[in-house]
Amino acid sequence: MADLLVVGSVALDTVQTPFGRAQEVLGGSGTYFSYAASFYTRVRLVAAVGSDFPADHERFLSDRGVDLGGLMREAGGRTFRWTGEYGYDLNEARTLDTQLNVLADFRPRLGEEARRTPFLFLANIDPELQLDVVRQMAERPRLIALDTMNFWIQGKREALLRVLREVDVVTINEGEARQLAQEPNLIKAARRIVDMGPSTVLVKRGEYGALMLTDKGFFVVPAYPLDSVYDPTGAGDTFAGGFMGYIAAQDALDAATVRRAVVHGSVMASFTVEDFSLQRLARLKSPEITERYAAFHELIRLPG
Amino acid sequence: MADLLVVGSVALDTVQTPFGRAQEVLGGSGTYFSYAASFYTRVRLVAAVGSDFPADHERFLSDRGVDLGGLMREAGGRTFRWTGEYGYDLNEARTLDTQLNVLADFRPRLGEEARRTPFLFLANIDPELQLDVVRQMAERPRLIALDTMNFWIQGKREALLRVLREVDVVTINEGEARQLAQEPNLIKAARRIVDMGPSTVLVKRGEYGALMLTDKGFFVVPAYPLDSVYDPTGAGDTFAGGFMGYIAAQDALDAATVRRAVVHGSVMASFTVEDFSLQRLARLKSPEITERYAAFHELIRLPG
Repeated sequence: MADLLVVGSVALDTVQTPFGRAQEVLGGSGTYFSYAASFYTRVRLVAAVGSDFPADHERFLSDRGVDLGGLMREAGGRTFRWTGEYGYDLNEARTLDTQLNVLADFRPRLGEEARRTPFLFLANIDPELQLDVVRQMAERPRLIALDTMNFWIQGKREALLRVLREVDVVTINEGEARQLAQEPNLIKAARRIVDMGPSTVLVKRGEYGALMLTDKGFFVVPAYPLDSVYDPTGAGDTFAGGFMGYIAAQDALDAATVRRAVVHGSVMASFTVEDFSLQRLARLKSPEITERYAAFHELIRLPG
Repeated sequence: MADLLVVGSVALDTVQTPFGRAQEVLGGSGTYFSYAASFYTRVRLVAAVGSDFPADHERFLSDRGVDLGGLMREAGGRTFRWTGEYGYDLNEARTLDTQLNVLADFRPRLGEEARRTPFLFLANIDPELQLDVVRQMAERPRLIALDTMNFWIQGKREALLRVLREVDVVTINEGEARQLAQEPNLIKAARRIVDMGPSTVLVKRGEYGALMLTDKGFFVVPAYPLDSVYDPTGAGDTFAGGFMGYIAAQDALDAATVRRAVVHGSVMASFTVEDFSLQRLARLKSPEITERYAAFHELIRLPG
């Protein structure tokens, strides 16, 4: 079992879906990722919050063993806030408001121990900061994964292309993969992204699951069939958390491990969307992960 | 190996996609279905064409062994014509023109032999005609599958619900499944459709593949990752053709056979979309089916 480092955001989210509303609840890419990964291995979170960040939320993360030594609390600062809503098509959020607050001046600084973490996830932040984090690592991690979004693809394309050359895995939405590759066919787009540097592309397809391209070819996994999806916020980051958490726990990168990791990512994402914020994950017990993993196996099993 | 009967349409299609245009080419649900299924078993096609239907097209089907004894050629009538176009989102066709012609008065009449066919597919036609075909069967087929569309769900709901009580399998698009079940969540929608009579619901999800619900639970299969999709017309009907063709060839209905059949349906659909009309299927050799089936197996294989 190896340690995992994530650099990302911690947020207070306000979310409206057809099934309810959550006001100023715990969110953020670093939060979802680290909480999900904590079911698999030891996780260090590097992020920034303001002095308004509830101590309860911090305890919620540290109770699961998330190492918050890298959580910078800016005196007098306000925590990053995001407000969004979803329609019945839960695949796409509409952002209503973004208040960067402490994120605006966020400059991740890794401690001595953090710089030697063997597995690294760069959650969706400015690609210049992502590259800066890579440069801070004392030794090249065994695996670096990166997440990004349309905002950076459009606004910081050069910086993004630079950091892409330094990472092994990129997780990206379907539309963003097409945008990054400037290619409408998703399969061609995934191949072009591999040409940009990462050896593995993980395309997140919302209710349709995930598609992975590696040098060994494609692996496609559906989303778990759920009767009720309450809030898709954080699904992508918990997916990455399950994926990276499993790989770090196994401390292995062979093809079979990576495929199982994709399914663990899908398992964690399937729990996240069953309730608002991290509420479903807060109730989650390890045997449920094992059980849903087995259900996934059966869901996609093609008899020989 | 058992015989398969399909009642559906034979058409002359005019199709525009971002990758080209095909003018008055061979199409129709019965055509795509029977041609695809002919790679697996003996198929009888019951359909109607006009006197303008090219003899070449008829030969094209009979050369593959499709039994055209039930192909009614109406003297002086014109063949059904459909004109549609697709944008870069190839999941949804926009119908530009429909000329029913001989289809307007189509009343399927099954011959003595056809009435005893053990496997029956009711392609997308008026549900009253679908029910009439079921009533004409001399004995209850081992498996009856049915396809339908928004036009009938909206316009002939009662007739559709009546015939649904008589069939085992329904193949349906995602949006149409929601519309039929009057339920936005696809998983709940599939369950409601099972409550309407069929023991198996096969939801067609275009580039995302297919989702099957049976009393044994869900089976979800992605679409084959293709670098170029030229024309999705007929993908759903070839999917059904591969599915039913494989089942009839095996003459078995156990869970493993049905899962393999879903993948064979996906294999055949993946070939169809690689060219306009039935051009890719016309070039298809049986070893290619075996090869792509193996590729599918690898595509979704989750190591134990």
